[in-house]
Amino acid sequence: MPDRPRALFALDPHNLPLLFPPDVLARLRELADIDPALVVRDFEDPGIRDALAGAEFLVTGWGCPPITAPALERLPRLRAVLHTGGTVKGLIPGEGWRHDIVVTSAAAANALPVAEYTLAMILLMGKDVLTARDHYRATEAFPPNLVRADIGNVGRRVGIIGASRIGRRVIELLRPFDFDVVLHDPYVDEAGAAALGVRLSDFDALLASSAIVSVHAPATAETHHLIDAARLALLPDGAALINTARGSLVDTEALTRELVSGRIRAVLDVTEPEPLSAGSPLYRLPNVFLTPHVAGSLGNELRRLGVLMVEELRRIRSGAPPEHRVDLAQLEITA
Amino acid sequence: MPDRPRALFALDPHNLPLLFPPDVLARLRELADIDPALVVRDFEDPGIRDALAGAEFLVTGWGCPPITAPALERLPRLRAVLHTGGTVKGLIPGEGWRHDIVVTSAAAANALPVAEYTLAMILLMGKDVLTARDHYRATEAFPPNLVRADIGNVGRRVGIIGASRIGRRVIELLRPFDFDVVLHDPYVDEAGAAALGVRLSDFDALLASSAIVSVHAPATAETHHLIDAARLALLPDGAALINTARGSLVDTEALTRELVSGRIRAVLDVTEPEPLSAGSPLYRLPNVFLTPHVAGSLGNELRRLGVLMVEELRRIRSGAPPEHRVDLAQLEITA
Repeated sequence: MPDRPRALFALDPHNLPLLFPPDVLARLRELADIDPALVVRDFEDPGIRDALAGAEFLVTGWGCPPITAPALERLPRLRAVLHTGGTVKGLIPGEGWRHDIVVTSAAAANALPVAEYTLAMILLMGKDVLTARDHYRATEAFPPNLVRADIGNVGRRVGIIGASRIGRRVIELLRPFDFDVVLHDPYVDEAGAAALGVRLSDFDALLASSAIVSVHAPATAETHHLIDAARLALLPDGAALINTARGSLVDTEALTRELVSGRIRAVLDVTEPEPLSAGSPLYRLPNVFLTPHVAGSLGNELRRLGVLMVEELRRIRSGAPPEHRVDLAQLEITA
Repeated sequence: MPDRPRALFALDPHNLPLLFPPDVLARLRELADIDPALVVRDFEDPGIRDALAGAEFLVTGWGCPPITAPALERLPRLRAVLHTGGTVKGLIPGEGWRHDIVVTSAAAANALPVAEYTLAMILLMGKDVLTARDHYRATEAFPPNLVRADIGNVGRRVGIIGASRIGRRVIELLRPFDFDVVLHDPYVDEAGAAALGVRLSDFDALLASSAIVSVHAPATAETHHLIDAARLALLPDGAALINTARGSLVDTEALTRELVSGRIRAVLDVTEPEPLSAGSPLYRLPNVFLTPHVAGSLGNELRRLGVLMVEELRRIRSGAPPEHRVDLAQLEITA
């Protein structure tokens, strides 16, 4: 295909074989003239000046440097940034972007594993399985207190904060179970919640009445420390907070105090900072299940991101609108 | 209601308030003359001779002693044993049972939480989340090896052993995900598997090709050490075995050897013996997620068992057939 447009990879090359296994790479190369051996790590690198000058598409991913104004100057023919990660924050500058350049993201595909991790944790936290495991391991005896009314997954209220792609997918995945799911999202109205099959709740009421709260809000200026000391104090005793979104959504110091006291429980896949400070009590507490930012796409899950990107390029090349275009004007209120 | 038949509780009294919360107990007492303060723990107890003599229904549960031939002699009016647990093995003797007495079980309701636990573990084992957690906790650093093709939940083969109630529910719960689910069950044919939406597999082929194997077979003479050293050896390196069924299905010594070598992984909610022997390596191994028999109904999940039992009594009293009658002739091949 002599008319294939030129494209360039700009991402952490370790991820390339996972994002683009041979069959996916072959589909990409049918649509674009792209060299998997040339991966941009620095837009100022003089050795790639010509490659940048000819590129119509950038295939970006985790590890791509920000596409600054000087970088854009070196990309005069750029038509689209096709991102294989979720958010494009940090990649696309807030100001000085050329708005004729389409930006797409694979957030829709990355939502799936995050929602899966969240579902698993909701199911396990409802039964306090993780604590039971730690107890059994440490004592070599069955926990004495399994006959208690405050565990179990029947009728338990799960509060979802944010009907983001991930929040919506979690709501969908919770349908086969007997949870009582409520949603807080300032951008969703009653009709929208009804369409999702959940009840809408005031934020504070959700916190005060949920046994499990899962955060799926975007990290924006507005959501910085959205869950602060006052809001944490609203959670019922024994409630579990699940954060797979961003560490900055929760005031880590306030959360640490609540967790050290043992009053509540938490599953934290993201923290602020990340990794946590050395010696943080969150590493050791029996009521904390801490994981190293693994809820998103890992291993063979990266393939979905590559496939989504290739299909997006196929649509753009055929003149169809991309399905996963990022609305840059909305970046301040979305992930 | 003067015509209410007399019924007796025979179960661990600690579970009674969870099995029969006030509203469920009230429904039961509309249907039967039953005293929650009188709970049979020993059918030979002379103090309950009259209560036994008048009882038409026994409401049994975990902790009920076996209903032996001498016990049956003291229960001349007994019409039905309504069990709030899963299996009635150990409760109903293999020989000498009066086959005019109906036996029902709540296995259908108990299948739900076991399947939920299994789903959560499949999702987490596919991504090796539990190992990543232990590593992060122990080292306070992110694992170095997260960019690997051998983790992730896309296209991964999950082998289900046994289309029991629990096995079927697990298959149903796996539908929203991108797993490749195969089933081995000697009592299910191709059409039955197709109806479940899975492919049928030869047992050994399933073991040799699955990344995750979950056991949902009944504990019978035929399935004792169903998964022995030779079958464990078929599992691919890194595969995960999940057992929520019964410890006797797996040869614990052979499994321990495979796990000590680090070749495979396991999630074990049941073991043989249970709890495990003191000092068993399974308590400590990083590739074992051991839980203290918590997958079944816990806490508020016991309510479902009571509700099922009450609805069964309602059907029997109205002359309808019970929906959860145990076929005692099939006990040798079922749970």
